Amino acid sequence: MNEKPNKSALNEKDGIPPPETFSAASLKKIVTSRKQQPSASELITGILNHDKVALSRAITLVESTNVAHLSKANEIINGCLPYANQSIRIGITGVPGVGKSTFIEAFGSYLTSLGKKVAVLAVDPSSTISHGSILGDKTRMEELVKDENAYIRPSASGETLGGVARKTRETIILCEAAGFDTIIIETVGVGQSETAVHSMVDFFLLLKISGAGDELQGIKRGIMEMADAIVINKADGDNINKAKLAKTEFNRALHLFPAKSSGWIPTVSTCSAYEKTGIDAVWETISRYMELVKTNDYFESKRQEQNQYWMIETINEQLKNNFYNHPEIISLIEESKKAVQNDEVSPFAAAQILLKKYFK
Amino acid sequence: MNEKPNKSALNEKDGIPPPETFSAASLKKIVTSRKQQPSASELITGILNHDKVALSRAITLVESTNVAHLSKANEIINGCLPYANQSIRIGITGVPGVGKSTFIEAFGSYLTSLGKKVAVLAVDPSSTISHGSILGDKTRMEELVKDENAYIRPSASGETLGGVARKTRETIILCEAAGFDTIIIETVGVGQSETAVHSMVDFFLLLKISGAGDELQGIKRGIMEMADAIVINKADGDNINKAKLAKTEFNRALHLFPAKSSGWIPTVSTCSAYEKTGIDAVWETISRYMELVKTNDYFESKRQEQNQYWMIETINEQLKNNFYNHPEIISLIEESKKAVQNDEVSPFAAAQILLKKYFK
Repeated sequence: MNEKPNKSALNEKDGIPPPETFSAASLKKIVTSRKQQPSASELITGILNHDKVALSRAITLVESTNVAHLSKANEIINGCLPYANQSIRIGITGVPGVGKSTFIEAFGSYLTSLGKKVAVLAVDPSSTISHGSILGDKTRMEELVKDENAYIRPSASGETLGGVARKTRETIILCEAAGFDTIIIETVGVGQSETAVHSMVDFFLLLKISGAGDELQGIKRGIMEMADAIVINKADGDNINKAKLAKTEFNRALHLFPAKSSGWIPTVSTCSAYEKTGIDAVWETISRYMELVKTNDYFESKRQEQNQYWMIETINEQLKNNFYNHPEIISLIEESKKAVQNDEVSPFAAAQILLKKYFK
Repeated sequence: MNEKPNKSALNEKDGIPPPETFSAASLKKIVTSRKQQPSASELITGILNHDKVALSRAITLVESTNVAHLSKANEIINGCLPYANQSIRIGITGVPGVGKSTFIEAFGSYLTSLGKKVAVLAVDPSSTISHGSILGDKTRMEELVKDENAYIRPSASGETLGGVARKTRETIILCEAAGFDTIIIETVGVGQSETAVHSMVDFFLLLKISGAGDELQGIKRGIMEMADAIVINKADGDNINKAKLAKTEFNRALHLFPAKSSGWIPTVSTCSAYEKTGIDAVWETISRYMELVKTNDYFESKRQEQNQYWMIETINEQLKNNFYNHPEIISLIEESKKAVQNDEVSPFAAAQILLKKYFK
């Protein structure tokens, strides 16, 4: 299992692998791959051998908007599929400022210290605009980046949420086939992305801090309801009492939500990612959750539901792509938009006209 | 303008018009209409003459899922379109328990007392399940129901949010052509429907109460950000001080949100729909808003954007309907879902197979 850790993979995107980490084999691999594109089966073999370079290349194909890459990407995913699914998928959300990167750094490092292999992915379509994604700035997870049992991949950029989410979903499969048994999926938690993340994870963790004014922490009823655990970060120094108070409040609030179909009662705990306290308790909670849902079959049925959801989502996304990239529609749609804008035709009538052209 | 108010229209759905409100003309109209379906142009004429029966019938066509009704509905909408748009559209949201029906009753009655004509619509796809929609239970707006210058129409039922929203959007056009100058669109404010409502109104009002625990009032950052005004209801009796406190808190919270592109600074006020205090202030706020956005052209540009949005939404909805109702897809999709469920094929590959069949 990953006998030849290939640290250079982490720098594949930068193009400058640190030479001191090179093994002869990995060097040969990179030199070869720059000359020619590896085939789908070569990439599958690489992934199943836990080669991070192959993994990164395959993810790049999955993320590609080049249609020529689509069938190759699909071939790789289907080749990996039988080896996927042997993992736990954890969604972590929290608005900017709650210390998400520090938490993931501490949590991920704790997990690798237990012998786990951790992949960290992101669903954050806005990161290209705001540059606010924690994963856009890898240096903020210094320790984890250097950890050979961790793999960090920023969000696919320049995409709609639907696109990013679908690609992240496919990336999970590749990471699992590459031997990662713990997949962490991060989202900034202020948009619609939590729903997308919730639909691809087994466990959903909401990260909070105390005393920042709950309004401004952007508490959405929907997100509170999704959470399997609320973890109040920055419970250190002067903050410990406030964090305890927040814990009580969240506990009270959570108990008023309807019971979860998983049978799980959401937990609230405090931690300090900075001081690395309370991190082990988070993992303990997740382990207890997994024991429950594997016993009561919720785990399996939820994953099946999620698979169906992603099939439907992929179809819907593709239907739209086809329509809006249709030559006749491209040439007509701006005109229609203008007519609709100026109330010359109702939005519905304009839609019907375009649809008729498309389906004729 | 509406010289022959036809109160029986309100009961059209129940089938039992209260006989005491019948004029000879309206009675004749109903008897005729039961014998034969009025034509599109008859309905258009009726609507433009501010006939509520014609309006109700046209809305029923718009809401119909019978494809035969689609072209007739479109004809009516396009016939009404040149006479629409002369109104102000107000979205009102708030979770159950904030007194939304009482507020709309008081607010709507205040508006008709100013000589306005008020239509109250709802976007609430869940109402068929929860029966929680205020408009499902008309008796809760006793005064407004009897008001000849008001028209109340519950949400189209048995539909997806997309469907309900589209139909509500079309219903707005019909109501405006029928002479209603103030359109109130209500949503229960716990789901995704606020976004849909926000995309069809000029002014978005968030109704709250104080002291019920903000967590449980389901404050979503998104909704707070959408609001042009927050009105704290039930500011009466022992509640007055708490409401004032809540007002301060919301004011503080609102000022930390980014500035609105309308140039409007959201307001916070208190009212008691029960005691009918603070209702006039709400209207004053909306009037000030309208003055601003009509001067700075935001009003016009927002409506144009909304029209475009609805064209795109209609297209996307229709693309999905076409796919999922395609005979070959219907016969294959269950099988695909099962294969995906059992990890025999990836959700993406299954989607590609179905799409290939559909597009071949």
